[in-house]
Amino acid sequence: MRPIRSRDNALVKHLHALATSARERRKTGETVLDGPHLIAAALDHAFPLKRLVVAETALQRGEVAALLARAPAEIERICLDDALSSHVSPVDTPSGIVALIDTPRPPDGAGHAEFSGDVVVLDGVQDPGNLGTILRTAAAAGVADALLTEGCAQAWSPRVLRAGMGAHFVLRIREQADALALLAGFPGPRLATALAPGARSLYELDLAPAAAWMFGAEGQGLSPALLSAADGLVTIPMGEGVESLNVGAAAAICLFEQRRQRLARTAAGR
Amino acid sequence: MRPIRSRDNALVKHLHALATSARERRKTGETVLDGPHLIAAALDHAFPLKRLVVAETALQRGEVAALLARAPAEIERICLDDALSSHVSPVDTPSGIVALIDTPRPPDGAGHAEFSGDVVVLDGVQDPGNLGTILRTAAAAGVADALLTEGCAQAWSPRVLRAGMGAHFVLRIREQADALALLAGFPGPRLATALAPGARSLYELDLAPAAAWMFGAEGQGLSPALLSAADGLVTIPMGEGVESLNVGAAAAICLFEQRRQRLARTAAGR
Repeated sequence: MRPIRSRDNALVKHLHALATSARERRKTGETVLDGPHLIAAALDHAFPLKRLVVAETALQRGEVAALLARAPAEIERICLDDALSSHVSPVDTPSGIVALIDTPRPPDGAGHAEFSGDVVVLDGVQDPGNLGTILRTAAAAGVADALLTEGCAQAWSPRVLRAGMGAHFVLRIREQADALALLAGFPGPRLATALAPGARSLYELDLAPAAAWMFGAEGQGLSPALLSAADGLVTIPMGEGVESLNVGAAAAICLFEQRRQRLARTAAGR
Repeated sequence: MRPIRSRDNALVKHLHALATSARERRKTGETVLDGPHLIAAALDHAFPLKRLVVAETALQRGEVAALLARAPAEIERICLDDALSSHVSPVDTPSGIVALIDTPRPPDGAGHAEFSGDVVVLDGVQDPGNLGTILRTAAAAGVADALLTEGCAQAWSPRVLRAGMGAHFVLRIREQADALALLAGFPGPRLATALAPGARSLYELDLAPAAAWMFGAEGQGLSPALLSAADGLVTIPMGEGVESLNVGAAAAICLFEQRRQRLARTAAGR
């Protein structure tokens, strides 16, 4: 492979724009995966890659070479000199390999959607690290669908992808989602964490049925419309002198309590 | 109060150094709390404040005025003009009030320590947001002590304090801790999360006895010395296609499973 050496190259310009601009990603419907871990996760889930772009000096690195050997032959490989490779990388310490992909577009529809299992609704979660971490937790807990309201960070941005650690290839993610409309036909409970009076302890709930968990942004919490649509308010019993949990921690506790109850039920049914 | 207007003022220089320099904080044993929430949390726990420093235009704000009215009279109040107030604030969007405090110094000792309950050991957790979030989760779960190894971020830095949301006033935090030596006489199990063979499911463990939970940094995991000191390796059962959890999520799941088991036991004993 002869490396590209010019910043004026159209592909280089395009990758740089995708790495640095949320608007460009939205306009083109494309994004970049940075690093061997994310690209390997995409391949593990048979997620289609459009192009693999490698730094000249990374070609010899075992991890990168293995990825190139493993990726389907029809995916175009492109080599950049090292300076250009840093230029198109969305992270501060470039890994030497990025993949160009199309952002998946699950059917939105104006009306309600069909869901095959649990759903997480994330409302106004703006911090990319928090958003990616919650997606990763939800995928690990076996959740199938994530609905992200308008105020959330862009799910397929490099920082959210990095924190998600591959969760994007496991979950079906709908962005700019009208969560209430999409959940119109959802058969299970809509649960919201709250410290409000009348909230029931997480540990007293029967979490066997598929649920829609709604988590709001740190500080503001859930929007009033979502909060009033909740069938149940759930509280996590906390120690004295502490008021609240980080939204990512709260999501982890709720989603894995659900997982624990289901595993216990399966074990008891054996 | 007549506001200070000069950057050459000794207190202004000192506060600016504390806000921006880990070395200065270490050298002086002092730090700053930024914002009404953290300062209110300190007052809630009768944590001693040395000085309250307020921006001129923040004096009229209800939240700030209420704090000033509530804080013990012997705490000196100092007013800065707004530009200086931003200069001494450790955050990008200054809240208009900071408090100067001494960083607590729990007894280190060369040998082992006495612990009254559960302990979390955080090993090499460098990300301030992650570290603060785990401290917050630990406090909410009722943990009493946190041991931070050398590679961790500085616990009393502004970013860790902000993510901790008051946990610093609930936990006893030892930094630069020789965790193995301190835990020498600890009566309960030393538990480490791992995907290693032989790890037992979190949900099969009896978590009634006080435990020392050891969490390693994302990526590297626990240091070999801590890992080999673990009495039990614990795994969190995850869904298919997902390898791992963020360390903050893993800590939340483990510490609140422990809390759930204890609450269930207390309820059953009634």
